[in-house]
Amino acid sequence: MLNYIFNPKTIAFIGASEEPKTVGSGIALNLLQSKKKIFFVNIKSKKIFKRKTYKSILDIKEKVDLAIIAVPCAVVNKVATECALKKVKGVIVISAGFSENNNKERENELKEILKDIPLVGPNCLGILNTKNNLNASFAPFIPKKGNIAFLSQSGAIIDSVIDIARTENYGFSKIVSFGNEAGLDLSDYLDYLSKDKETKVIAIYIEGIKDGRKFLEVASKVSKIKPIIVLKSGKTELGKSAALTHTGSLAGDSKIYSSVFKQAGVIEVDSIEELLLTAKTFSFNEPCLNGVGIVTNGGGFGVLAVDYFDALKIKVPKLNEGKNPFDVLGDALADRYEIVMEAMLRQKDIHCLLVIQGLQIMTEPEKTARIIVKLQKKYGKPIIASFVGGESFKKAVSIVEKNKIVNITEIKKAVKVIRYLTYEK
Amino acid sequence: MLNYIFNPKTIAFIGASEEPKTVGSGIALNLLQSKKKIFFVNIKSKKIFKRKTYKSILDIKEKVDLAIIAVPCAVVNKVATECALKKVKGVIVISAGFSENNNKERENELKEILKDIPLVGPNCLGILNTKNNLNASFAPFIPKKGNIAFLSQSGAIIDSVIDIARTENYGFSKIVSFGNEAGLDLSDYLDYLSKDKETKVIAIYIEGIKDGRKFLEVASKVSKIKPIIVLKSGKTELGKSAALTHTGSLAGDSKIYSSVFKQAGVIEVDSIEELLLTAKTFSFNEPCLNGVGIVTNGGGFGVLAVDYFDALKIKVPKLNEGKNPFDVLGDALADRYEIVMEAMLRQKDIHCLLVIQGLQIMTEPEKTARIIVKLQKKYGKPIIASFVGGESFKKAVSIVEKNKIVNITEIKKAVKVIRYLTYEK
Repeated sequence: MLNYIFNPKTIAFIGASEEPKTVGSGIALNLLQSKKKIFFVNIKSKKIFKRKTYKSILDIKEKVDLAIIAVPCAVVNKVATECALKKVKGVIVISAGFSENNNKERENELKEILKDIPLVGPNCLGILNTKNNLNASFAPFIPKKGNIAFLSQSGAIIDSVIDIARTENYGFSKIVSFGNEAGLDLSDYLDYLSKDKETKVIAIYIEGIKDGRKFLEVASKVSKIKPIIVLKSGKTELGKSAALTHTGSLAGDSKIYSSVFKQAGVIEVDSIEELLLTAKTFSFNEPCLNGVGIVTNGGGFGVLAVDYFDALKIKVPKLNEGKNPFDVLGDALADRYEIVMEAMLRQKDIHCLLVIQGLQIMTEPEKTARIIVKLQKKYGKPIIASFVGGESFKKAVSIVEKNKIVNITEIKKAVKVIRYLTYEK
Repeated sequence: MLNYIFNPKTIAFIGASEEPKTVGSGIALNLLQSKKKIFFVNIKSKKIFKRKTYKSILDIKEKVDLAIIAVPCAVVNKVATECALKKVKGVIVISAGFSENNNKERENELKEILKDIPLVGPNCLGILNTKNNLNASFAPFIPKKGNIAFLSQSGAIIDSVIDIARTENYGFSKIVSFGNEAGLDLSDYLDYLSKDKETKVIAIYIEGIKDGRKFLEVASKVSKIKPIIVLKSGKTELGKSAALTHTGSLAGDSKIYSSVFKQAGVIEVDSIEELLLTAKTFSFNEPCLNGVGIVTNGGGFGVLAVDYFDALKIKVPKLNEGKNPFDVLGDALADRYEIVMEAMLRQKDIHCLLVIQGLQIMTEPEKTARIIVKLQKKYGKPIIASFVGGESFKKAVSIVEKNKIVNITEIKKAVKVIRYLTYEK
């Protein structure tokens, strides 16, 4: 039933406008980029971006699959009534001014009007589907295609996330700003995405969950099929009251949330950056068992890595033929990395590698990068690269990343991501 | 007495070589970049890089202020004896193969030989002084001049740090790889740097402290004059044993270390990135009292920020004329940022601002950046910018950073850094 939201053949946009830098023109221009049949509706204009414009959705003769509503909140329900009469198959209400603004009554009325028609929002940015180039939102652009689905209670975070991802080599399948969840809720999207062929990983930003019981049930099932990674804000007392003002969410007790996530097999992270890095890592890798090998050309990096791993209860099994972390020393050429990496990848209790390289006299970053790529393909175990530096490692980083190996300069973050990638039997 | 180490007039380098990608040629070439008088010593060569080369330091007729030794460990003490006879004013022993390698005896002998001559190392990268362009180390290049001094037990971390800093706009005064501390120890460097005009902030990476009592005494004094920021590794059991193998450090109980740091007024961070960001922040700002104002154009960012601040016990005082965090909303132009920022900066219990901006329809990043710069100058309170995005904020980030305002894309890190900047009355 969500198919009409993500794959509509015809779309009516009610509240279209030509005025620059408004939601009305933003969405209108975004929609025109898709190859769908688009109808603009605006009570005042005759033409918008040179296209015929309708006074009401009811004036459109063809069938309409998806209606997008971005009109002042006072008239949303009137417009929604017309959408129901038109028998649209899905509705996205962008407009704010509902429960998040203490107007629960208006939100209930909206639900009543639409009955069984799937509803995204209100108070949201909209949705994006990279597969069919559909940007039914006011996000500034469509991100690269990829296998990460992103669900967010905050529209602003979606904008930032796609901007951060712009120069990265991972991409998104579908993005949903779900707003107040008057109709469809987080669990409905999870259920839909679990069957979505384009989606391998699901990343979520939330401030609160409406129906905890439903979430626990659905997420438990979905997490067995696809990794779910969540960033939950509104954890502290101050954060909770900020969340209430922002999306009207009852953020609740963070310990209860964490235990629900754990029970449901959902991975909880604690920053936007971690959310993206972890999603990216799952986008490129399969989960692995507990046991990591560390190769480094700087002893200090090894000490730091082991500290972080130990604190997160990740095993660092002794290498049969040497130490772990294995310090190949500052004068190591790439071949020394290769020998140690291969010995580690062959060992049964090492399921994942962290390969750290700082810039030292003999360092060969690009060669090392190619060895990482080669050995990852040969052994199939996940490898996380950590080239610790800047300019000098740009080429090496681009080599591994092009081959779907994640580079994380910050060792602490690399370790955390490996922790998230690890599952227990 | 350390002045001869950092500001020698004449330098003898024993172990110079022409062979590419070796420590001997690396240091030789680095030294030639300075305008000091350099003498190369090598028992076999007559000329190195077209310069006359001496068989022994004793063959040099002129006075030698600083001797740098990078010869096989078995002959270090013989060479050091000649340095003592030559009455040099300071020695740096680069060579490894001493206490870190279970050869405590050789290290004790070295100390005996040099007696009162200040000794850096052994088992180190060397030292750098950006003021006089002196790179008496095998670090690949001299970083930008600036007011951060960096002391590190790991040479590799120095190399990475200067590479990370390469595209940044902060810089370093002096860098010391102190190695085994057979002669000069961490506290000696701290004492020296406390009086160093070029140094405003001191950043340290350590695995263990040799003389805890001395450190507590010296650091307590120095931290009253200049902020000291430390990254201590070897915290967990596994980390401790890795540290022992790396630098021979007895990493000790991390709780004891943390309490010593606290007592001494030293700021403890837990990653290389945090060490650099915090040093950079102190490089540009003065410490401030507890109380932060948050401006954002995305409610979600505000909720995240408040969560992080609350967890770290940073106060988020209510704004007289509104909320804190203050959500200027997604359609905010730069002027709305200006009004809210100014109201916050005027308020007595707000001592620092975190200004968050995500990319939304009306966002004006560059204008916002210029307002941040203007208001920071007007009110003098620290402002941390957090432009949450990538490409779209490049210009804005460069505007604030050029004006010595730190931008931190990751809100969680921005909050941590503000925490470190905060002191209690």
